[in-house]
Amino acid sequence: MDTKIAQRHHVVVIGSGFGGLFAAKRLRRANVDVTLISKTTHHLFQPLLYQVATGILSEGEIAPATREILRRHRDVQVLLGEVTGIDLAARTVASQAGGVVTTTPYDSLIVAAGASSSYFGNDEFATFAPGLKSIDDALEIRGRILSAYEFAELEQDPKAREEWLTFAVVGAGATGVEMAGQISELARRTLVKDYRSIDTRKTRIVLVDALDTVLGAFGTKLSAGAASQLEKLGIEVWLDEKVVAVDDRSLTVEDRTGARVRIPARTVVWAAGVKGSPLANSLAEQSGAEMDRGNRIKVQPDCTLPGHPEVFVIGDMMSLNDYPGVAQVAMQQGKYAADAIRRRLRGKPAPKPFHYFDKGSMATISRFRAVANIGKLRFGGFIAWLLWLAIHVLYLVGFKNRVTTVLHWAVSFIGRGRSQRITTSQQLVARNAVQQLDVPDDAAPAQVENAEPVRSA
Amino acid sequence: MDTKIAQRHHVVVIGSGFGGLFAAKRLRRANVDVTLISKTTHHLFQPLLYQVATGILSEGEIAPATREILRRHRDVQVLLGEVTGIDLAARTVASQAGGVVTTTPYDSLIVAAGASSSYFGNDEFATFAPGLKSIDDALEIRGRILSAYEFAELEQDPKAREEWLTFAVVGAGATGVEMAGQISELARRTLVKDYRSIDTRKTRIVLVDALDTVLGAFGTKLSAGAASQLEKLGIEVWLDEKVVAVDDRSLTVEDRTGARVRIPARTVVWAAGVKGSPLANSLAEQSGAEMDRGNRIKVQPDCTLPGHPEVFVIGDMMSLNDYPGVAQVAMQQGKYAADAIRRRLRGKPAPKPFHYFDKGSMATISRFRAVANIGKLRFGGFIAWLLWLAIHVLYLVGFKNRVTTVLHWAVSFIGRGRSQRITTSQQLVARNAVQQLDVPDDAAPAQVENAEPVRSA
Repeated sequence: MDTKIAQRHHVVVIGSGFGGLFAAKRLRRANVDVTLISKTTHHLFQPLLYQVATGILSEGEIAPATREILRRHRDVQVLLGEVTGIDLAARTVASQAGGVVTTTPYDSLIVAAGASSSYFGNDEFATFAPGLKSIDDALEIRGRILSAYEFAELEQDPKAREEWLTFAVVGAGATGVEMAGQISELARRTLVKDYRSIDTRKTRIVLVDALDTVLGAFGTKLSAGAASQLEKLGIEVWLDEKVVAVDDRSLTVEDRTGARVRIPARTVVWAAGVKGSPLANSLAEQSGAEMDRGNRIKVQPDCTLPGHPEVFVIGDMMSLNDYPGVAQVAMQQGKYAADAIRRRLRGKPAPKPFHYFDKGSMATISRFRAVANIGKLRFGGFIAWLLWLAIHVLYLVGFKNRVTTVLHWAVSFIGRGRSQRITTSQQLVARNAVQQLDVPDDAAPAQVENAEPVRSA
Repeated sequence: MDTKIAQRHHVVVIGSGFGGLFAAKRLRRANVDVTLISKTTHHLFQPLLYQVATGILSEGEIAPATREILRRHRDVQVLLGEVTGIDLAARTVASQAGGVVTTTPYDSLIVAAGASSSYFGNDEFATFAPGLKSIDDALEIRGRILSAYEFAELEQDPKAREEWLTFAVVGAGATGVEMAGQISELARRTLVKDYRSIDTRKTRIVLVDALDTVLGAFGTKLSAGAASQLEKLGIEVWLDEKVVAVDDRSLTVEDRTGARVRIPARTVVWAAGVKGSPLANSLAEQSGAEMDRGNRIKVQPDCTLPGHPEVFVIGDMMSLNDYPGVAQVAMQQGKYAADAIRRRLRGKPAPKPFHYFDKGSMATISRFRAVANIGKLRFGGFIAWLLWLAIHVLYLVGFKNRVTTVLHWAVSFIGRGRSQRITTSQQLVARNAVQQLDVPDDAAPAQVENAEPVRSA
């Protein structure tokens, strides 16, 4: 090329989650052009997604438009697009949206495409047990939970009614515990006076995990405390139980001895695991990088792809030093990758290997109850909850979202109301359609015991 | 029956809009059992629906759960259900939801099932030009408007880009004017700094009406003022133009001389008319009542069905004295019907015929601009807008909705932000699907002139 104007270094960022957003922001005034490609138009504050799924917050409060956040970053262009291919040799990213296929060349690439729910090879569960990873998921789950109460109120048959009033949450990590806790709050506080035929306090909530602890990442003492808190909330905690089947009326679990129990439940939420974006496979194939069991790429100590110092893979789709798949890792890696690119452009030596500074982790169990794990400190209860509150308000994007969120929390935690109790007509029609396709109970798979559950907590 | 306990008088209310809700509330402590059947789980504050469709308010703020509003009304049971039949002879209402068919007997019946968008016999327009009557509609339109800008940003072809940047609103009544005004605010204030390839200020907004005035109900002077305000906002006002065709890329209008113009536009919103619920037809057939052109039942002066003093038909599905299809009429009729039932049960003489007390009407054109029509007073501008603000805050249901709404208004009207800019992945996928089915331009119907529009305001 003989153009006289030197083209600026072009950084392409894939993903608008914590990793991608923080990388793009950190490249401000770096004298580079940035293109951020994402399949959603918003940045998602995932740690509060369960609050959208249970009617506390509106979707807008946790998902501001990515381009609004970056509007003062004049060097950043945000493009809607599902990335369909990355060509490491040609250094291009192909994406597609609205019938338009876009090919974007890059000098540096930051891949932060995140993770999706993993059903561990049983993808057919997804129809009956949606995961909680996106705004679509949260709105779908909100519709399912709230409409279950409507259908229970209509149902005359006590057994069918119980099925509507049973909610199963699969996975006892932070998201699963938070979902179970919030369904309990809905049932035992918010909805208590709203129904005439049913007693919402009789809602059955089952929290299932294949492992033997609740919130395992928080250590034995907090785990035990969390489990007992959950049981006080009336949540049955079924540990060491693997989910082997899910349909529109039940889930079936299997313990280590191979004994199976079918739990009749109309509403199942999947919070059991995640797997890295399919883009990881393509990158691994092209670069020869290894993958871990969670479909994540094993990256170099500086978060790059082996043999490709110009390609950074960060956040939930990479594997490094067993760092957990949390927002903090993605944010710190986003900044690290941006800084590495800046150093390179200025001719400075390569940065030290990425090191995750663990600021701590927390999970709420219910209003006023949380667990926190900060450095060597591990504590639970009201103080942990206050800390959770303060930190989440601080990290929420945008002043107006902070103000309305605090207000909605006041309404939900001090009062008993929830502001966002919408079930769309589309969701009701979908529930109806499933209803009308119902197969009789005796058509259930033969190998599954159709017995009532024998364990309760 | 020889049960010894006398059964209480049972009032069934169909619909959770202004009519149904105010009827149910007014029956408090009337010593009657009330069953309110509705196909949605929420009461909808329709006058602010356009603000959900344009990202100012969240759906929860204008659509609180009906059973939450009525939770202290212990004699009222709220049932989810699409009413499938009313049997006037047997005095029963059949409804369906969640696969459960419910038959509810009544002593008195208040039918307030409302109206839906009318395409005047061209129901095939609905796919490309959604109406604005429900939460589903508002979320769909929000997704279409905001994703149009995303697709415009991606599009390299100037002509295709212009199609994405053209928005047509059909119907220049209050809803149409408010939608056009808000799209203009989005384009010329909110989104201005968010895009890099397109200039959102070049958005083309076309407001079309088959009649010759804007906001005709407000009188000649305010109409002219509103039209000039709209033009100042950069909105093209096309009057005396009937829409004769809509597809995924355009709408075609026809003037009185029969001349047609095709307006390329990817996003079309239908606010042209309404028609009474299909339940009106069934009631008319059974009772011999007359219907008007808007599919509304002509009711008796006391809002009852001819020959059926026990059946009240109120709100947008009835026709009486040319009262307009507005919230105030429905609310007043709801209260009137409830009072009439109370009087009857107490053996008091029948009430005087229903008389609508017109408190006035208003429409906003943009922030700081509205028109108001109160008694003999007709005025526009900032004072009208302040009044609009005060009245809408006052009428919103629930303290928390009032507080968050005022906050969101402050953000949108004083600042330039909008809190609710979510397009779901489902909506993006749907837009993509339409894109991929695109037919070439020359496949357009032969009778339609494929010329560029020749008028502009």
